[in-house]
Amino acid sequence: MQTGTGSRRRFFWEITAVVATIYATIEIPLGLVFPATRTTSVLVAELMLTAVFVADLLYRYRKAKANGPEARTRYLKGWVWVDGLASIPFGALIATPLRVLRLLRLLRLVKLIRVSSTVNRLKSVQIVNPSVVRMAVLMFWILLTAHFVAVGWIALDAVDRTLPARSQYLQAIYWTSTTLTTIGYGDLVPVTASQTIYTIFIQILGAGLYGFVIGNIASLIANIDVAKTQFREKLERINTFLRYRSIPADLQRRVNDYYEYLWNSRRGHEEANILDELPLSLRTKIAYHINSEIIEKVPIFQGAGEQLIRDVILNLQATVFLPDDYVVRKGETGREMYFISRGSVRVVSGDEQTVYATLTDGQFFGEIALLLATERTATIRANDYCDIYRLDQDTFNRIIERYPDFAEHIREHAEQRRQEMGL
Amino acid sequence: MQTGTGSRRRFFWEITAVVATIYATIEIPLGLVFPATRTTSVLVAELMLTAVFVADLLYRYRKAKANGPEARTRYLKGWVWVDGLASIPFGALIATPLRVLRLLRLLRLVKLIRVSSTVNRLKSVQIVNPSVVRMAVLMFWILLTAHFVAVGWIALDAVDRTLPARSQYLQAIYWTSTTLTTIGYGDLVPVTASQTIYTIFIQILGAGLYGFVIGNIASLIANIDVAKTQFREKLERINTFLRYRSIPADLQRRVNDYYEYLWNSRRGHEEANILDELPLSLRTKIAYHINSEIIEKVPIFQGAGEQLIRDVILNLQATVFLPDDYVVRKGETGREMYFISRGSVRVVSGDEQTVYATLTDGQFFGEIALLLATERTATIRANDYCDIYRLDQDTFNRIIERYPDFAEHIREHAEQRRQEMGL
Amino acid sequence: MQTGTGSRRRFFWEITAVVATIYATIEIPLGLVFPATRTTSVLVAELMLTAVFVADLLYRYRKAKANGPEARTRYLKGWVWVDGLASIPFGALIATPLRVLRLLRLLRLVKLIRVSSTVNRLKSVQIVNPSVVRMAVLMFWILLTAHFVAVGWIALDAVDRTLPARSQYLQAIYWTSTTLTTIGYGDLVPVTASQTIYTIFIQILGAGLYGFVIGNIASLIANIDVAKTQFREKLERINTFLRYRSIPADLQRRVNDYYEYLWNSRRGHEEANILDELPLSLRTKIAYHINSEIIEKVPIFQGAGEQLIRDVILNLQATVFLPDDYVVRKGETGREMYFISRGSVRVVSGDEQTVYATLTDGQFFGEIALLLATERTATIRANDYCDIYRLDQDTFNRIIERYPDFAEHIREHAEQRRQEMGL
Amino acid sequence: MQTGTGSRRRFFWEITAVVATIYATIEIPLGLVFPATRTTSVLVAELMLTAVFVADLLYRYRKAKANGPEARTRYLKGWVWVDGLASIPFGALIATPLRVLRLLRLLRLVKLIRVSSTVNRLKSVQIVNPSVVRMAVLMFWILLTAHFVAVGWIALDAVDRTLPARSQYLQAIYWTSTTLTTIGYGDLVPVTASQTIYTIFIQILGAGLYGFVIGNIASLIANIDVAKTQFREKLERINTFLRYRSIPADLQRRVNDYYEYLWNSRRGHEEANILDELPLSLRTKIAYHINSEIIEKVPIFQGAGEQLIRDVILNLQATVFLPDDYVVRKGETGREMYFISRGSVRVVSGDEQTVYATLTDGQFFGEIALLLATERTATIRANDYCDIYRLDQDTFNRIIERYPDFAEHIREHAEQRRQEMGL
Repeated sequence: MQTGTGSRRRFFWEITAVVATIYATIEIPLGLVFPATRTTSVLVAELMLTAVFVADLLYRYRKAKANGPEARTRYLKGWVWVDGLASIPFGALIATPLRVLRLLRLLRLVKLIRVSSTVNRLKSVQIVNPSVVRMAVLMFWILLTAHFVAVGWIALDAVDRTLPARSQYLQAIYWTSTTLTTIGYGDLVPVTASQTIYTIFIQILGAGLYGFVIGNIASLIANIDVAKTQFREKLERINTFLRYRSIPADLQRRVNDYYEYLWNSRRGHEEANILDELPLSLRTKIAYHINSEIIEKVPIFQGAGEQLIRDVILNLQATVFLPDDYVVRKGETGREMYFISRGSVRVVSGDEQTVYATLTDGQFFGEIALLLATERTATIRANDYCDIYRLDQDTFNRIIERYPDFAEHIREHAEQRRQEMGL
Repeated sequence: MQTGTGSRRRFFWEITAVVATIYATIEIPLGLVFPATRTTSVLVAELMLTAVFVADLLYRYRKAKANGPEARTRYLKGWVWVDGLASIPFGALIATPLRVLRLLRLLRLVKLIRVSSTVNRLKSVQIVNPSVVRMAVLMFWILLTAHFVAVGWIALDAVDRTLPARSQYLQAIYWTSTTLTTIGYGDLVPVTASQTIYTIFIQILGAGLYGFVIGNIASLIANIDVAKTQFREKLERINTFLRYRSIPADLQRRVNDYYEYLWNSRRGHEEANILDELPLSLRTKIAYHINSEIIEKVPIFQGAGEQLIRDVILNLQATVFLPDDYVVRKGETGREMYFISRGSVRVVSGDEQTVYATLTDGQFFGEIALLLATERTATIRANDYCDIYRLDQDTFNRIIERYPDFAEHIREHAEQRRQEMGL
Repeated sequence: MQTGTGSRRRFFWEITAVVATIYATIEIPLGLVFPATRTTSVLVAELMLTAVFVADLLYRYRKAKANGPEARTRYLKGWVWVDGLASIPFGALIATPLRVLRLLRLLRLVKLIRVSSTVNRLKSVQIVNPSVVRMAVLMFWILLTAHFVAVGWIALDAVDRTLPARSQYLQAIYWTSTTLTTIGYGDLVPVTASQTIYTIFIQILGAGLYGFVIGNIASLIANIDVAKTQFREKLERINTFLRYRSIPADLQRRVNDYYEYLWNSRRGHEEANILDELPLSLRTKIAYHINSEIIEKVPIFQGAGEQLIRDVILNLQATVFLPDDYVVRKGETGREMYFISRGSVRVVSGDEQTVYATLTDGQFFGEIALLLATERTATIRANDYCDIYRLDQDTFNRIIERYPDFAEHIREHAEQRRQEMGL
Repeated sequence: MQTGTGSRRRFFWEITAVVATIYATIEIPLGLVFPATRTTSVLVAELMLTAVFVADLLYRYRKAKANGPEARTRYLKGWVWVDGLASIPFGALIATPLRVLRLLRLLRLVKLIRVSSTVNRLKSVQIVNPSVVRMAVLMFWILLTAHFVAVGWIALDAVDRTLPARSQYLQAIYWTSTTLTTIGYGDLVPVTASQTIYTIFIQILGAGLYGFVIGNIASLIANIDVAKTQFREKLERINTFLRYRSIPADLQRRVNDYYEYLWNSRRGHEEANILDELPLSLRTKIAYHINSEIIEKVPIFQGAGEQLIRDVILNLQATVFLPDDYVVRKGETGREMYFISRGSVRVVSGDEQTVYATLTDGQFFGEIALLLATERTATIRANDYCDIYRLDQDTFNRIIERYPDFAEHIREHAEQRRQEMGL
């Protein structure tokens, strides 16, 4: 999205053209039904409109030309007609007694098509919620439509034409609003045949529009908070299953607690899935940031090279342990080492009678069995919910091999801890 | 979700503040349109409101302070204005003849923003169906909106101001309800220009609100019974396929019966998928519970260690057999052994003339071929729908290896059965 | 779904009870607002109702008892109150001048809860489109609601009470319909305060109900023709991609033709996916049926054992070739043999100058290179869209090994064909 | 979709029959309520209708006969009744004073069922958005329904029967439109009991229809722009995650820029996924086209055989590199070679001080380490967003092996480049 000065200037110009077009769209129909009251203002407006539209014509022609002769030809065969037609000052015909001639002014409204193409451009540039953009655009078109409908109602003399223009318009727009919203008070109803036919069309239009609005709102709502909805759906599916299998209430509660933890601690995201589709460089940077706490806290990483750290963090696998879960059991063959990201664990003897130590955020364990290829020397259980990163043997060995200094570092650390625990 | 006494007290306080706010929201606008009738009640209410709001201001300040100096500063720069503004007893101005001054009371309604934030907090704490919460909150805002709309209608003198206040309000709320629901009887319609403009806005608001309600209901409905809908969709897809391929009606019926069995026996869940994403400890516990019947019934598990049982049940694969399906055929090489969870099978000779035995819930078979590496010694067919768990050779061997006692146990059992059947 | 005589009788009884309940639901409120006109009919109806409800009470008690003492206790603590209350002939109070006493008759309507539970049972038994069931049930409740609303309108004396009862009811139901559908003609509007309050509630109810109906219809529509919608979505995604990458129109058309063929020939289903989740026995039977044509047409399968055929068809992989696609090219190493299910191919020389043969439905090719481990001896191209089943080398070898007779059979066939083609 | 002359003629005939049917559907009910005004026109119309319907009967009989005796029998047992009934010129009864007899003309409308089956045929032939087709068909039925409803309203003498027929119809259709759209002005309301009952039914019908229309529109909207919606959802999920993990704003912006690039450069498609399910021949052609630029630009492909190029392009893997990303690092073992599709990279020394070269669209690199089995000889970083295709070692080796000439070609090229860079 290069937003240099040129593109910003272009943007402001397009907005100007859009505003002028909208003004024309509102003013011109009014000028048709209230010719007498508007002559003075119309002349000025007509002048300015013509100026803007001619400028727009030139601007677009130049832009097309800048894009090569092909684009120029394409412009001259297509859009030039729209831009040209809108530039003719039909307003000069305002005083003509022939209604048909005055209707020619409506031709300038072809410029509205341009509004639509500007909006579409904006939509494709920014990746905002398309439903929201669609709602805003829809609202704009509905208000414009209501204006036209009201003017049509006046044109059919369905309001008291002896009232001041403002009151006539108010009455017409009130009738329009009452009809398009399907409320239909019925205090203003068609009298002549042409009014009746007009009303029938507007009613059908109104019902369709209203349905369209509701459909858009429904689609908008369906897209709100997708993440939470999906998470809740998953949870509900599991709960149905648990209830169906009559799993004890206590166990059901543990499952729900687990999911609540998942939601509160990571909005139910599987980190791995989220990051998977990013390119390697971004993935590394994000993983680096997320795990920066570990890297800062784990002493063995102090002074380790950037390359090593990158290798390690991209290979960590996030796991959650529940309170009292066994992380490792004494006597099992160890195939992983662990880094605690959040939570605390207790290191206990095989019979769980003696607590050797409590490890918390930024500490690691399980490296002894990996390094010395022995069985686990102690049992380790979670104290509370723990976010723990695992590093499996293969990666560990690969890293040890590539970074012998680091291996030595860990080995010393392991030896020291072993002695501390008196094992 | 720690709900200690402190958090419960906090909860009750917030509810009190919310109730006071809602009262203010209803009372203050009424006080504006019916000043005469309300002077006595307003004074008491004003006092109590001021008390509650000042208390709330202090409470929130203390809470912010307790969260550290940073939170305190943030509070003093932001929310304090809202809480402070709401605490000023503008009600003292009730008797003032200047309407503008009386309008100042409306400023206290800024406190409504607080309601919204309390509700949001509740939403994020509990994982309930967000659509339901959204509907309830929406209903609350709609009723509040209706109240404001009705008061506005009275303020524009659109009702007979000579009636008693209660009747005026009833008439106004009746008009509001008629309009917001898009029913529009038309017995009460705007007369003056300002009433007409007001009506137009309310009509557009009403149509939008109504569309929003419908959209929410549609979204709510779409989320009901997702499991069943998905199951039915799958079934329909299969039936389309079967019909398209003109599979005989008899076979189609069998497929449908199978799916009905699946639905009735397990709500269409694939156990494996459901449990897959739970952490190991929960998965084990649930699997243990689900299979506890088998474990209790299968004699060879009696007295087996917990560790062994855990190893076995996590490796069982659930399969469904239809009535008369072949589970094993005599002469085939056996690669699995089977535990019957529900249903019964018959052990027959190769020519299916002789029925050796019938096995039911909790019995197992197929272990002979696995242990002795021979061909299947008999054919086994399902009598009715059977939920059978399979244990494949690899897992079986791994378990046999790790638990030699257990292997011996099974071997004896197999030998004994073979003799019983006279094979 | 066992539907023995017992269950059918039970079904009819439940239907009888439901019909009686619905009758009571309609009759009892009418009896309240038109007491005078109904005394004779009410007595008979009351008697019959009481009879049916008492019978239902006994029937349900017996059923609960049959389900064991636990179910009996549960019944005696719960539903018995509903069934009992509904059985009391409050109709005897019809002549009482105290309105409050007459309102007691409404208590019998608690029986309606039973209707709901019967319907729910039906829903869970049959796997029909739950949206359709929901719509029907919804329609039923709406009509019932409309009845109650109309009776309430009469009770508030909002209709001309001097008219005959039938006209009063018609007028009331007309008002209800006008209001609940949000049409609101406004020819009948509330006059008294109580009528106004009643109308407000009904309007809100009506708007909610209407929204609920629309939501249900939307959900129903979303579930129609899911297969086609998904297929079309996929196609659109591909077309977007093709257009975006400016793939030549000719190639785009080929892709679309291919998808149209897929839709017309198999409704876009991937056979493999559809069948994958069926149990083996059903899968085999369906695959057998689908491929029965091939099995009947391919001469080498004539006289082959059932077991062999089963082995082959479960290992066939369906592929589609487009007109002029190369199926095999001369000189390539062959790793598959092919069976033509639908369409025709031409066997041509390497330079594609000579056409050796044309093969169609039920013929096979590619076996020579597989058997003799040589290169492809000819090029084969599709003449039109071809559904061709592939059998890969591994499966082929396994089958050859297990069924030596069959191998011999194919070998002869291959030799013969080779000679015919003069290769 | 074979559209020969025969099928086109058939199509036109069916359209003719449909048009005649629609004419009959409109005309016949009008003839019933305005018998006097229509006698002349009806006679001609009746004649033509009868002619068309008899012709249609013959046409369909012949078509059925052409499809074999079975289809003929089926036709004679089924549709012939519909076609036959519609062919009887009941119009002769127009002058009869007995209304019941005149109602017989309505029997011809059974032909409408035929319209529905024609439309269904069209739907299954073309794979257009089914929602759009559904909306158009729905609109048609609604207009037809409105016509019937209006005629019914006239038949009940709810309009002023002394007016000219045209005015009566206009008034009736106005009432219908007002009611079906749920607007309900209330200027035309039922007076007699039969009119009231009719109105109630039409109101319920209208509410249902309207709900159905809204549901369809909602479903239509939900299916618009699925690709963009899904892409945006994914992006939002990632942004939630990034915000939740408080990733620095700078890094968040990089991720968003990356996704914007993905959207702008390929609409978020994963090329591989899109092409995966196409048959090999189409996949090859599309991949060929997409990569044709590379093939044209990369010098080593010049003069390479078609077969080789096909082998290479089907094995290329598209990757995106961000500005300043490392593509290869000096000293690493190379396992891939790279072709630049779009963007530019710089070849720098290990310390990134010296820039050896800049490579852009159509150039390749990384072949040296692959060929000579050495470490990367230089570091390569992206200058801007780069679409780069990777060829991994296995494929590379396989291709080298199969096409020794090509291997030689690359080897020379690599040697030459090495010397140029002075490595």
